[in-house]
Amino acid sequence: MSSAQRPPEAAVADAAMLREVIKVQPFTRWTGLEVIKAEDGAVETRLVLRKDDMTQHHGFLHGGLVGFLADNAAAYAAATMVGDVVTSQFTVNFLSPGIGSAFRARAQVIKAGKRQVVVRVDIIAEQDEGEKLIAVAQATILPVGER
Amino acid sequence: MSSAQRPPEAAVADAAMLREVIKVQPFTRWTGLEVIKAEDGAVETRLVLRKDDMTQHHGFLHGGLVGFLADNAAAYAAATMVGDVVTSQFTVNFLSPGIGSAFRARAQVIKAGKRQVVVRVDIIAEQDEGEKLIAVAQATILPVGER
Amino acid sequence: MSSAQRPPEAAVADAAMLREVIKVQPFTRWTGLEVIKAEDGAVETRLVLRKDDMTQHHGFLHGGLVGFLADNAAAYAAATMVGDVVTSQFTVNFLSPGIGSAFRARAQVIKAGKRQVVVRVDIIAEQDEGEKLIAVAQATILPVGER
Amino acid sequence: MSSAQRPPEAAVADAAMLREVIKVQPFTRWTGLEVIKAEDGAVETRLVLRKDDMTQHHGFLHGGLVGFLADNAAAYAAATMVGDVVTSQFTVNFLSPGIGSAFRARAQVIKAGKRQVVVRVDIIAEQDEGEKLIAVAQATILPVGER
Repeated sequence: MSSAQRPPEAAVADAAMLREVIKVQPFTRWTGLEVIKAEDGAVETRLVLRKDDMTQHHGFLHGGLVGFLADNAAAYAAATMVGDVVTSQFTVNFLSPGIGSAFRARAQVIKAGKRQVVVRVDIIAEQDEGEKLIAVAQATILPVGER
Repeated sequence: MSSAQRPPEAAVADAAMLREVIKVQPFTRWTGLEVIKAEDGAVETRLVLRKDDMTQHHGFLHGGLVGFLADNAAAYAAATMVGDVVTSQFTVNFLSPGIGSAFRARAQVIKAGKRQVVVRVDIIAEQDEGEKLIAVAQATILPVGER
Repeated sequence: MSSAQRPPEAAVADAAMLREVIKVQPFTRWTGLEVIKAEDGAVETRLVLRKDDMTQHHGFLHGGLVGFLADNAAAYAAATMVGDVVTSQFTVNFLSPGIGSAFRARAQVIKAGKRQVVVRVDIIAEQDEGEKLIAVAQATILPVGER
Repeated sequence: MSSAQRPPEAAVADAAMLREVIKVQPFTRWTGLEVIKAEDGAVETRLVLRKDDMTQHHGFLHGGLVGFLADNAAAYAAATMVGDVVTSQFTVNFLSPGIGSAFRARAQVIKAGKRQVVVRVDIIAEQDEGEKLIAVAQATILPVGER
């Protein structure tokens, strides 16, 4: 159940606010996640791979962290549209191994409604040859504001 | 892309083998995950919550780690049936906040075929009042053996 | 976007009400779907295969109708708990071809909350040798009552 | 379990072949589905709404048929890349009611691998005001050729 909290007076999240949110989310902080961009339903985050505690047995980014990147970016993208949110569900399809020195999640809100926000996410690896799409996700995020 | 590796001579994974697998999977090792049970398509794992690096801003288990528990248990359950695997996709629906001192993933293979293995997973919190189901997942796992 | 309508005075749906709902849902009526059971979050429906307009090229139930059975039973199950609903999303995993003379959807509400209802569904074929599980699904259903 | 059959000598499907496939798929034929385009992993199909047997109780396209459009277009798109296929799973998120006189599914293969093909699909309504995106889907399709 991911969520991006905001002060009651704020309408929606932006990059500066999400950077503050990360400071009070111990797991996200542990990942070292950076918020590159966050506005109008579009979010980009970036995670630098640490070989010693983020990988599976081949030294690639662990699938669990690919899922985290997707869920997190989807929730943040929704928060830029509707403020406080929780994740209802997400689906992730893995395309290629998590080979790379860093990874980006690019989330785009497809529809922000009163009851739900639907988001698509691309997970991209930074490889020597350039960017590579390694997973695609789709998420349902629920607004939790005072309604 | 989760996977549970096995020596070429071994047919399928069991609990002892999965405990060895965890030792060479840095992220899974970081989580401190225990394999409680692993046989015949049924797997149970357990994760003890560390407040300082596994939580979100309310002190609950982070949703990204709920997703990890689901994906991981699904892949391990498939590995008890077909050996080496990778995760194709998983879907997780969050039901309740990740409140608890420890969490269990119970995975059950629904169908193990030549081309794919389908698994359902329950994620359960250990709370003062007893066990609580906090998320449900469904996963498609692909055998990657020498075919 | 499936939905099970109810009169404003009624709290939740039951089998009798759902049978009336089908009469005003042209596509569901076309399928000949029967409601076998509908109470307390558990629904069972049944569809008799018509070879001439419900099959794919091998004479099996078309996957699109397997998806329909899952979505429909999930929405009906949620309606027995919370009244008016719409489907937010569903995931279906296909296990075996749709071989059989009739098919049943068994839906069980896992959690009925204020904002969402999560449902699991089994799709079962009636075959000469007995029942066979041919697909599993997971759905998020949203209450749409006067909130 | 959708599938797009091809003669053994043919490598992959194209629009002409898929139009022949529809003739031997009774349910798809019943829907009157047209194949607008099918090449290189991109497929567009179109369904004209029949009010008397394709709708739910408000006269909108039934959600079960939205799911069918997604699954079908995903399988066809995969077939343009890898030939014979079956659907492993699909997820559909509903965004808006199925209001419109006709509906289009636009499917795009994201990754065509040896073991699986991942496809994204948009479902679009033709409304008086123009096109409207009413659902998004993500599917895993499995090649079934002689491997």
